[in-house]
Parts: sequence; C-alpha cells; structure tokens
Amino acid sequence: MPLKSDPRRERRDSLIRLLQQNKAQAIAITHLPNVRYLCGFTGSNALLLISARESILFTDPRYDIQAATESDVPVRVVRGVLWNDAAKEIRRRRIFRLALESDKVSHADWDAIGSHIGARAELLPVQGLVEALRAVKSSDEIEKIRRSVLLNSQALALTLPLLKPGMTELEVAAELDYRMRRLGAEGTAFETIVACGRRSALPHARPTSELLKNNRLLLIDMGASLEGYASDMTRVFHLGKPGRKVRALYDMVLEAQLAAIAAVRPGATCASVDLAARETLHRHRHAQFFTHSTGHGLGLEIHEGPRLGAKVESVLLPGMVVTIEPGVYLEGFGGIRIEDTVLVTETGVEVLTPSTKEFLEIAS
Amino acid sequence: MPLKSDPRRERRDSLIRLLQQNKAQAIAITHLPNVRYLCGFTGSNALLLISARESILFTDPRYDIQAATESDVPVRVVRGVLWNDAAKEIRRRRIFRLALESDKVSHADWDAIGSHIGARAELLPVQGLVEALRAVKSSDEIEKIRRSVLLNSQALALTLPLLKPGMTELEVAAELDYRMRRLGAEGTAFETIVACGRRSALPHARPTSELLKNNRLLLIDMGASLEGYASDMTRVFHLGKPGRKVRALYDMVLEAQLAAIAAVRPGATCASVDLAARETLHRHRHAQFFTHSTGHGLGLEIHEGPRLGAKVESVLLPGMVVTIEPGVYLEGFGGIRIEDTVLVTETGVEVLTPSTKEFLEIAS
Repeated sequence: MPLKSDPRRERRDSLIRLLQQNKAQAIAITHLPNVRYLCGFTGSNALLLISARESILFTDPRYDIQAATESDVPVRVVRGVLWNDAAKEIRRRRIFRLALESDKVSHADWDAIGSHIGARAELLPVQGLVEALRAVKSSDEIEKIRRSVLLNSQALALTLPLLKPGMTELEVAAELDYRMRRLGAEGTAFETIVACGRRSALPHARPTSELLKNNRLLLIDMGASLEGYASDMTRVFHLGKPGRKVRALYDMVLEAQLAAIAAVRPGATCASVDLAARETLHRHRHAQFFTHSTGHGLGLEIHEGPRLGAKVESVLLPGMVVTIEPGVYLEGFGGIRIEDTVLVTETGVEVLTPSTKEFLEIAS
Repeated sequence: MPLKSDPRRERRDSLIRLLQQNKAQAIAITHLPNVRYLCGFTGSNALLLISARESILFTDPRYDIQAATESDVPVRVVRGVLWNDAAKEIRRRRIFRLALESDKVSHADWDAIGSHIGARAELLPVQGLVEALRAVKSSDEIEKIRRSVLLNSQALALTLPLLKPGMTELEVAAELDYRMRRLGAEGTAFETIVACGRRSALPHARPTSELLKNNRLLLIDMGASLEGYASDMTRVFHLGKPGRKVRALYDMVLEAQLAAIAAVRPGATCASVDLAARETLHRHRHAQFFTHSTGHGLGLEIHEGPRLGAKVESVLLPGMVVTIEPGVYLEGFGGIRIEDTVLVTETGVEVLTPSTKEFLEIAS
C-alpha cells in the first residue's frame, strides 16, 4: 500500500514556496486556525515558525502533552511570552527576513517583535498566504465539511418536531445546540440564530426570551463544528399557515438562492454568483432589502475566503466550499434568508446541505 | 425618585479623562467587548469614536436596527470598511491626536488608518485603558456575574444525576451546555472542558468521544454567558469510590484553593494570592505540577485583568471579580483543579460559586 502523504507537510511546502516569492526566509504564524492547518495543533496559545530548514511549534506548559500528540513538527514548550524564545531561535538561525501576517499581528506585538529579533532583521508584512491555501479544500477537508453539514441538518431535523408556539427563541436555540452536541459536534460553529416574527428582519439576531407565536416567521441560522470544520445553514419556517404575501416573499428568495447556486462553477467570478441572486431580487423589486453579500467560504473558520460579494472579481476553483445565502429583510415585518453550504466541483456545483427548502409550516 | 445615571456615559467620561492625560483628543475603539462596555452595542462589526465633544458608533447595514436599539450614542450605518467613514469624521472634526488600542488593532490596519486620516494627524498607541476600567465591576455588573455564576452551578447540579460510566465526554459536555441554555444563558462562556481519567491531566482538554469509566477522575470546567457576562467553575469528581492517593491529591488542591481565597482582600497583590496557593502545594511537594497561574478576572470576556500570577504586583480592589483555580496535573495519572468565581469586597472576599467542593463520587 502506498504511503499516504501528510497534507500538513505539503501545505507547509506550498507556503515556503510563497515565502520565497516574497523573498522571506521564514514566517511566524500565530493565527490559530492557520497554526492548526499547518501543523495540527489545536491549543489556544501557539507560535509556529516555518522555514525551509525546519519548522518549530512554540507553546506553553498547559499544552505540553497535547502539542506533542497533535503536532507533526517538533514542539518547544516555553514559559512566558512565546516570542521571547522564538526570537532567540530566529537570531540563532540567522533569519534576517521574517514574514509576519500583518492583518493578524497587533501593532503593539509588531513593534515588540521587531525589537526582540534585533535591528539586523527585517519584518515583512504578508497577508492571506495561508488563507489562499485554505480556500481550496483537500478531499480530506471536504469529507469533514460534508460530515459537519450532515450533522447540522440532522440536528435541525431532530429538533423540528419539538417546535411549537410558546417556546422562547432561546429554548429553540438550546434544543438545536444540544442535538448538534449529542450527534458528536464539538460545538456550534457560531452562536445559533433563532429569530421569530419581526426579529427575523435582523440578519444577525441573537436569540432572546421572545416567544414563538402563531402567524409569524421563524428564522433559524445554525452551524456545527465537527473535527474543527464548520457548517452553515439557514432555514425559515412559518408558525401556522403562511399568507399570500409571505409565501411570495419566500418563493422570491428561494428563486434568488437557486439562481446563485446555478451560477457556481469553476472559473465563475464571485461577483457573478452574487449578481445572480441580486438580479433575481431586482426583477421582483426587492434588491434594496438584500443588505449583505451572497455568501462566504467556510472551513476551519466560519468566515473564510472567498467572499461572494458584488465587487469580488476573483474566480471560484474546484474544492472551494462556500455558503449561498441571499435574504430579504423588511423592518417591522420580518426577514427571509435561505442558506446552503455548497462545494465547487470540477464541472459545476454540489449542494452539500440536504435539508428541504420547502416553506415548512409549524403546527400549533 | 432620583434619575439613575447611565453607567455607559460615566465610563466614556472616565475614558475621556484618561485620554486627556495621554494628550489625545479622541479614541477609536474596535475591540467588541470594549465597544459593548462603552455604548451597549453587541454586534460583530463596530467602530466607536469617542471624544469630549461627541461620540459616534459606526456599523454596517446588517446591524441597522439593532444598533439603534442598543447603543446610547448616535449610530452611523455605513457600507464597506468602517474606517473610510470614520476617517472622514476625524478629519472633519480636526482631530490631530487620535488614540488607538495598539494591542487590538492589527499592524496592517494601523498603517491603513494612518493613511486614511491624513499626514497631519498622529496615531497614539494606548493599551489597557478600557480594560483598566472594566477590571472594577459596577454593582450592576456584579449582579449580572452573580446570576451567571448561579446559572452555571445550577446547570451542573441538574446534570450530575445523569452522569454514569459509558457516557462519552462529549455527551457530558452536551448535557451541561444544554442545561445552561435552557436556564437562559446565551451560551457557554468558553468551550466546556470534560476530561476523564488521564485526560484530566491536560489543563485545557477538549471533550472527546472517550468513555467515562469506573475508578477514574472526571474534571469539568464550565462557564455560562448571561447578559454578556461570564462565569467560570471547575469541579472534579470520582467515578466510584476514590482511593487514598487520589483523595490526598484532592484534599491538597482544595487546601491550596482555600488558602488562595483566604488571601483575597482589597490591597493584596495578585502575586500574594498566587503565592498562597503555590506555597501550600510546595509544602506538599507538588508545586511543580501546578503549571498555570492561580486565576484571572472575568466579566464581558472570560479572561480579563487582573491575572493572579506569581509576578503580578498590582493590587486587588473592591469590585474586582476573579477566579481562584489552582490545580495539579500528573501525566499518565490525571489532574485535579478546583475553581470558584470570587468577588473582592470592601473588607475581603465573597465566594460567588455555590457548588459544593466535597469530592463527590459518581455511582455506576
């Protein structure tokens, strides 16, 4: 049987090639999802020094055992500020051009690092190198996202029969989160949104002690985290039989969502996917109520590249995983958003989310 | 009835006085817990510009309605990067000395902000100004933390009768989190730690599909988030009757924890509280297995100042809320940590956590 190559090593090799293009000898990574992606460590305090010669993970004594188990690069456990020891290593190795993720390192840390590593060394600001690698998922990552998406849909399906007027939004969120966990999720990928009636017009509503009542919309936006990978789905229900206006709104959003999904394929720009949703809503004279972008990548983080926004001209590639989630929000009335997680395939798109997009009624 | 003054306004006034000492005309805050503390807004994208003349909250259209409801300062809803509009306002108001939280603003943003606001203006790095205000809680905040702590203990009490060998760590975590939510929490304050047997020697163990088994330790570290405020508690149980060695370890950690609590009073240094725990373990020849500091402040964030570490010479003040959580971790055997949330009072200390610290046995 052929040896299975370690994706972490390949990722570091890709990163080192990008560094060489930037004329950097090494990079120090502290953004935790990037650390996890590049060496496997999942603790909350880490500094990963990567160079062509050797990579080292610095962490503190709390993670002594865990780091040794998880990381595929040598671990150095140090007390105090990780940068003190990392700087010594950088000087010892005569690294004079060190790349840092300038959007992840604070201004104060940047200055401190500069003085730690000495005046002869130069800090090179880089951005999005690891994120660019992360945007295209490996088959192993796609498998994890697939499992996360299925678990998420299953948690919704198990919770739906319990929903009824008189429950609070917070209770609904508790039931959803509980089922995700019982199905094996580490937790939610983000704070579950449960918004009833007029509150559904707040795209990022936190659940409250507001009661579910008949003749109202119920918006649920939920995601699980499984083996580190996120899922993300929004569904909207109606408590009791929906009237004509709300059904028309629902159908319009669904039409926009399907149009955006149909626009997903390798080589399509992010903007073209966003436009597909926006034009549909425009035809129905509701584009002005669609106040956010059509979707975003997800993986080790709930919001990753690419962003499916009106001005994003980058193209989709096979292996990217994105959400498609147009919505319309009418203040004082309510909001409808329909969201799936989809995979860009070699030839087009695969919708990963299995939950029905029928406009379901919750009986009293 | 006298008018109740708004604490948010008082906090901003205190901050403005600190700014004046730093010779800054204004400050721009983007760290979300600080934004919430200073104006009440709880959304995920915010820039709060504070000056003696007028404060403004910038956010994006997703939070249009929410910001107007929550914030006590005028809201400006803008599309795109918040800094673009904030910079216009800064130039319009002729602010030439703008303070920024240098430990919260990325190096890349710092540079971008500098060019946005123009060459005539100067950016002043400040750190910990808002955090210093936040470290001493108002009576209203203490009340919220108290409720969060009670809810957290109640969730544990409701879950304990369910625990038995054969459950996985993840299932236990699911039950705990569910009960927090059902009792009204917005969620957990951090990822619940459930670690059985040898895994309890990992101070920050994530729950796994490992089974609870007889004759093992079970460590639970949990916290709720209620009205934005965190609680934090660790308890250790034994599956079946504990042997002499593990009971002696438990008693030793409890002795250290009680010693640290007894050292808490206004005017005591953080280091003296840490030392009280460490010396107790030292007398029992176990100080080397206590690999972290004795505690930390908590409030809108789960980790705030002050840190109760061996080298922290700052003093405790009435109204501070901190955890007291010494632990010993024996690789290959297991770990014991006992943690309460306590309040520094005018005269000493009040332990807020009501859960028993007896070494409870979980029957099979």
